[in-house]
Amino acid sequence: MNKNRRDFIKKAGVIASSSAMLGTIGCDSGKNVNINKGDGKMKLTFHSYELKLKHVFTIAKNSRTTTPDMQVQIHYNGLTGYGEAAMPPYYPENPDSATKFYQKLDLGQFNDPFQIEKILDYVDNVEEGNHFAKASIDIALHDLVGKMMRQPLYKIWGYDQEATPCTSFTIGIDKPDVVQEKTREALPYRVLKIKLGGGNDKEMIENVRKVSPDKDLYVDVNGGWTDKYEALDMAHWLKDQKVVFIEQPMPRNQIDDVAWLTENSPLPIVADESIHRIPDVLASKGVYTGINIKLMKCTGLREARKMITLARAFDMKILMGCMTATSCSISAAAQLSPAIDWADLDGNLLISNDPYEGVKVVDGRLVLPDRPGIGIRKL
Amino acid sequence: MNKNRRDFIKKAGVIASSSAMLGTIGCDSGKNVNINKGDGKMKLTFHSYELKLKHVFTIAKNSRTTTPDMQVQIHYNGLTGYGEAAMPPYYPENPDSATKFYQKLDLGQFNDPFQIEKILDYVDNVEEGNHFAKASIDIALHDLVGKMMRQPLYKIWGYDQEATPCTSFTIGIDKPDVVQEKTREALPYRVLKIKLGGGNDKEMIENVRKVSPDKDLYVDVNGGWTDKYEALDMAHWLKDQKVVFIEQPMPRNQIDDVAWLTENSPLPIVADESIHRIPDVLASKGVYTGINIKLMKCTGLREARKMITLARAFDMKILMGCMTATSCSISAAAQLSPAIDWADLDGNLLISNDPYEGVKVVDGRLVLPDRPGIGIRKL
Repeated sequence: MNKNRRDFIKKAGVIASSSAMLGTIGCDSGKNVNINKGDGKMKLTFHSYELKLKHVFTIAKNSRTTTPDMQVQIHYNGLTGYGEAAMPPYYPENPDSATKFYQKLDLGQFNDPFQIEKILDYVDNVEEGNHFAKASIDIALHDLVGKMMRQPLYKIWGYDQEATPCTSFTIGIDKPDVVQEKTREALPYRVLKIKLGGGNDKEMIENVRKVSPDKDLYVDVNGGWTDKYEALDMAHWLKDQKVVFIEQPMPRNQIDDVAWLTENSPLPIVADESIHRIPDVLASKGVYTGINIKLMKCTGLREARKMITLARAFDMKILMGCMTATSCSISAAAQLSPAIDWADLDGNLLISNDPYEGVKVVDGRLVLPDRPGIGIRKL
Repeated sequence: MNKNRRDFIKKAGVIASSSAMLGTIGCDSGKNVNINKGDGKMKLTFHSYELKLKHVFTIAKNSRTTTPDMQVQIHYNGLTGYGEAAMPPYYPENPDSATKFYQKLDLGQFNDPFQIEKILDYVDNVEEGNHFAKASIDIALHDLVGKMMRQPLYKIWGYDQEATPCTSFTIGIDKPDVVQEKTREALPYRVLKIKLGGGNDKEMIENVRKVSPDKDLYVDVNGGWTDKYEALDMAHWLKDQKVVFIEQPMPRNQIDDVAWLTENSPLPIVADESIHRIPDVLASKGVYTGINIKLMKCTGLREARKMITLARAFDMKILMGCMTATSCSISAAAQLSPAIDWADLDGNLLISNDPYEGVKVVDGRLVLPDRPGIGIRKL
């Protein structure tokens, strides 16, 4: 057992039908016991796991080298579904809040994992917020049901395995030499997503273009611009730089300014910070060209699929994004990727201690495994 | 082979990968040959079937004793998915138009029925319109895929088998003694749907109430009222008669009048004639309280599920309706019924020559069979 795997066993629990803590089990410790085999009830186990980033990661608001993370498992009749809550520090959830949420759940009351709507309605109503923790349960339940049906989720949902998009690879805000080094490192990827909003926007793009003059670029401003006229000027300049779209150019509360920018911009304007769940999709109609769906923010696959349906009905573009995360939640998101326009599902590529193998990037494109459920296996 | 079954063989065809007519096969004739076994391609067969109504059926616009119908089958590797297009004469489609549509389809180009989105996008784009014919393909494909996964559709979709609503039983516009007789016949059903708009609205309700004083009633005006003030007066009167909602009170083009009625009515106002596909759901927001989804009008289960997602996001109520039809398309619609508020899925109860057994009505409630796909078996 290497060090990364030992890190699995930092904080763990088993939530049984009584909602009580029954014991401490690390899912990858070699000691995992299925305490529920054949008794027809669902049981939840979980543990925290610190994700180690390959590079210091800088966006408009902060820098960091790790991401807190929770790994969850739902056990049922000898099968295990895997889920994850990846929790960057600029969101309100963390392993402690997730642990408290899991301890409130009584999944043992359900004897049929197929009842996804009923079970996830229950999970959603146990307490407000806790979107990341809810997403981890949602992913584990979908993985479990996929395994019960012996089919990958993309097949169960009627999607074409061949219709997956390329994923972008993210380049954080940094000094010229680091940006150029990261751009070189990203040569296997066909699309780059450049973080802007740090005051050196043109320099960032110019340094990327020195190494990679022709690649498609997405830019993500994380709400870093505040003047709509300057934003429009940048949109025109970025279009000349072969940028495909601009994500969250301005703060989420500058709705009228964003609507004006969207109407006048030569590039699509995609909502990110503005989008959590279904009501945010309704509110983004007429304000943005597209939305960025993230499993952690929207409570998981069930809600993400509904948001896709809404966005398509509104003729909006769809980007799927992610946190830095393991191949667990990234592979879950990738199951939906045949239904979207743009993927930014590189979170597992940014960490050095991924405990799973799942979706692959081959010639820049997401390749879905044939395995059932979310399609991961432990390394 | 009884007479009803011989009626199956009125018009039939086999559409293979070449789109050519290969032969004439009645699916219930005892002569059905699976010409595609194990070759990994999908093949479409179909035949017309005249539905015989138990009673002369009268709504605001016409009366009839039969309903034209097409039965379709998709064959793949030894499995068969069943679909249906039930085609009342007041809609623009009929067995001839459906036959022409089926002959344009080349399902043999697809070697994986799981690719529902891709296949049904193709079917939808072959030609505009043909919603009923498209629905029959959609139902057969979903039935086939459910059989491949060995699961009923409601389980694949994550619904609770126990959450099905009661279905209403429809009483057409008729003379007092006939209305009373039909109401007596409908005693096993917990909810009645009364057709109004024939100029004898109060008399209709009063005759129902003579036989069944307490049962919940839905009313369907089929656009028969044109004055919004009279409509509002009727809404108040109907509320006193323990009516639950009013379906399509006014013609679909009187949008402002309907919006006014919805705002002022003490009863929910449900769109029917106004609703076909997804764009109609968008247009009904703020005009109606709820929508009536019918598989035949919306091209089938795939689009119906998306309409349910949209209506829920808009906080709208959902009724599912049907045509007079066999247990094939009624059982398909019933698979969605755990996700809706009100069901009017009695179309199979109104015919005397149903060739299938599927969803049952037990103590007024829809009961979904455990069989895979849409859950039907031939009688």
